[in-house]
Amino acid sequence: MCEADVYLVKEGQEQLIIESVDIVTPEGDSTWRLVNIFGDQKTVKGRIKEMNLVNHKILFELQAD
Amino acid sequence: MCEADVYLVKEGQEQLIIESVDIVTPEGDSTWRLVNIFGDQKTVKGRIKEMNLVNHKILFELQAD
Repeated sequence: MCEADVYLVKEGQEQLIIESVDIVTPEGDSTWRLVNIFGDQKTVKGRIKEMNLVNHKILFELQAD
Repeated sequence: MCEADVYLVKEGQEQLIIESVDIVTPEGDSTWRLVNIFGDQKTVKGRIKEMNLVNHKILFELQAD
């Protein structure tokens, strides 16, 4: 399976938000809906900092502006 | 491998931009750098419409504003 773990980077630290995410969709301004392969959902506010799919990792960071 | 194919959705049509993408990073305002597992790079202007990692698919769309 090719899901990814989603982290929020805060002051240089990666905080795990939700594991095994399948679907990522924007929900309005700088809010994202994350749905994992178990059907769990979370929203994260921020912007995408980097996605590394082969390493199963998506990093968000807080919006600067 | 867990790379994804990246499409730009234009007038309801999905146009393939680049296959087998590993790394996605933002480059300034609404521009994204895409690097695939072969080391090929492309940039796409727009915003993420949806990512479906299990289906290996990332959709971009043109910015409305």
